[in-house]
Amino acid sequence: MAYGYPKPLEALARALGRLPGVGPRTAARMAFWALRAPAEHVREISEALVAAREGVRPCRACGALAEGDRCAVCADPARDRATVCVVEHPQDVLAFERVGTFRGLYHVLGGAIAPLDGVHPEDLRIEPLVARVREGVVEVILATDPNTDGETTALYVADRIREAAPGVRITRLAHGLPVGGDLEYADALTLGKALEGRRSA
Amino acid sequence: MAYGYPKPLEALARALGRLPGVGPRTAARMAFWALRAPAEHVREISEALVAAREGVRPCRACGALAEGDRCAVCADPARDRATVCVVEHPQDVLAFERVGTFRGLYHVLGGAIAPLDGVHPEDLRIEPLVARVREGVVEVILATDPNTDGETTALYVADRIREAAPGVRITRLAHGLPVGGDLEYADALTLGKALEGRRSA
Repeated sequence: MAYGYPKPLEALARALGRLPGVGPRTAARMAFWALRAPAEHVREISEALVAAREGVRPCRACGALAEGDRCAVCADPARDRATVCVVEHPQDVLAFERVGTFRGLYHVLGGAIAPLDGVHPEDLRIEPLVARVREGVVEVILATDPNTDGETTALYVADRIREAAPGVRITRLAHGLPVGGDLEYADALTLGKALEGRRSA
Repeated sequence: MAYGYPKPLEALARALGRLPGVGPRTAARMAFWALRAPAEHVREISEALVAAREGVRPCRACGALAEGDRCAVCADPARDRATVCVVEHPQDVLAFERVGTFRGLYHVLGGAIAPLDGVHPEDLRIEPLVARVREGVVEVILATDPNTDGETTALYVADRIREAAPGVRITRLAHGLPVGGDLEYADALTLGKALEGRRSA
């Protein structure tokens, strides 16, 4: 009888193969690394995985990433509660925070409307946004990704807000963002300009 | 004040960045994946890391990967104890086991002599090999990698065995292995041929 790897090693390689962008060869290399790496580094990854999975949840108010019930932005009393910046993904919040000039709150939709991918308006956090907007919001900045799905989503969200809260100002980020790209990877300067030059929707 | 990612997410991305071939961008992508992936998949990776790190150790006899004190090959009473195949890395054992024709035992050196990289003979499991060979071994197959460091190591090990156990037959894998490559990635057919055509050292 011929032998393979010890079972715990095979199990590790199989588990690591679930990570995005990790194929069987890379997973095996990582598994071997784990056998020889300092035990505390391996334990650090192991514990960080569970800590992040269990400790980071969507903010109850805005849907951004939070350690407790509320994200750091929503919990900050100095932020302007009358302005809400609507983005697709939690990562986009960090992109704006890196610019550092936006003083309002955020709302994370959780994606963009994309019927071909099976994402419909009811799959996104659009109605919670409408409910928030009705409670004293003066301006909603639609900062969905500058691509087709993002544009569709912005038009839909703008319609819903006009319908439910007619007095609210609705703006869009200035063009200047590279079209077809991901908002998350825009550089701070470009994103800052786009924020400055936002226009009525 | 501007905000970054929640601390557990940053800690996870930093920890994942220790994995081989994982840069900051990939680590961040993996960390985000962990937030959304099924909790049991994340826990599976977390537990498999610790289980492999703690449960897989070098075999006391041959240095190959083992779940307990002894690897599966050394623990198998059907294997021929008079023939020892000497390899650099635990991965190389699996390469031979995939061929499926070798019936002897292995000895893992733990690398190759490479003075420029600070690897000297005393850093490898050469003396434990010499001690094993003295106890009834008839043939030692030197199957170090077919590159300069591997050749140097084979010559050194052959000399040590000739010195300490003069009657033992010492053989090398037949050439046929791609020179300059890694033994681990040789295909089973090539490796099988190389094993068949082994010659006296």
